[in-house]
Amino acid sequence: MKIPKSINRFVDIFSRLPGVGPRQAIRLAFYFVRQGKAFQDDFAKTVNDFKNIGICKRCFYIAEGADGLCEFCKDKNRDQAIIAIVEKETDIMSIENTGKFNGRYLILGDIRRSGILETDQKLRLQSLKKWIEKEFGGKAKEVIVAINPTTEGDIISEIIAGEMRPSAEKVTRLGRGIPTGGEIEFADEDTLASAIERRS
Amino acid sequence: MKIPKSINRFVDIFSRLPGVGPRQAIRLAFYFVRQGKAFQDDFAKTVNDFKNIGICKRCFYIAEGADGLCEFCKDKNRDQAIIAIVEKETDIMSIENTGKFNGRYLILGDIRRSGILETDQKLRLQSLKKWIEKEFGGKAKEVIVAINPTTEGDIISEIIAGEMRPSAEKVTRLGRGIPTGGEIEFADEDTLASAIERRS
Repeated sequence: MKIPKSINRFVDIFSRLPGVGPRQAIRLAFYFVRQGKAFQDDFAKTVNDFKNIGICKRCFYIAEGADGLCEFCKDKNRDQAIIAIVEKETDIMSIENTGKFNGRYLILGDIRRSGILETDQKLRLQSLKKWIEKEFGGKAKEVIVAINPTTEGDIISEIIAGEMRPSAEKVTRLGRGIPTGGEIEFADEDTLASAIERRS
Repeated sequence: MKIPKSINRFVDIFSRLPGVGPRQAIRLAFYFVRQGKAFQDDFAKTVNDFKNIGICKRCFYIAEGADGLCEFCKDKNRDQAIIAIVEKETDIMSIENTGKFNGRYLILGDIRRSGILETDQKLRLQSLKKWIEKEFGGKAKEVIVAINPTTEGDIISEIIAGEMRPSAEKVTRLGRGIPTGGEIEFADEDTLASAIERRS
């Protein structure tokens, strides 16, 4: 489809956002044009202000302050010696929603299907090990590998666990079993096997 | 889900875009933070520049120039006395792709399920009638009602046709029948009936 020149740049950059295809980008462009000036100004200002948000130098979550740390890394009421390694920011939000975790995080970035760590991800693990060394002079209390329990996630989790073992008194993984509200009849074999092994 | 304060405004305004839910807006926010400064600057600038795009005073498509007209309305090689009434901008793009139409347009805006015209839509039809009066001193050559052939679209099309008849030598609708590549066996009854009626 021939895209009008005047919306071309807008469509091009919006198409690069995750989950937004070219057709939706075109619809967004026309939607944007149809909105009043108030919305357009507000939108442009929001995007512009957003450029000032930084990334936590320790865990790669969002950071606002001049110290370059996120809300979890600078929170003295949290146990900074317990670190959950997650794939992405929204996983942190899900874990925070449970109210069951009071440590800090490391964001590793999306796990690829290849089942190997990207260079960036290796650097983040190295960086975490250095922080642990500097903060605790050796080992953290616990590193929780909170990666999705998929086939490739399991492979990566093993690699991460091996990497982190010298830097933590214990390395754990999220419990696995039948989800709350789930039925034994419909649980797959692996899940049921995990549930039996990890019975408590 | 508790949304971090710093991304709240971004999530809020992105959630208002069509087809973008709160969860995707959160993902977009984190995606945006993760991108480098070059992308962020480019994005912010694109959005900001986009505020300058206007709407054609005659057909409500996008207009860039100082004359307030779109590319179709100012094109002297197009027959300005043939006007297709469409729901939305992307319908114009689809029609343009065929290369089979050389008139101009009127964008009416999305048809509601209610099967009645919104006040804004009535005003746009009135405005078209005034333009026709002014340009041709009475009647346009043809008005094509190019609204989707849905139940509510058919009702609205009848209303529009009645409204436009005094202002056009003829009022037509898009041909209806079996789509190219379609099979008679699987055509619904209405479509097949139309195809028989409009055989040529």
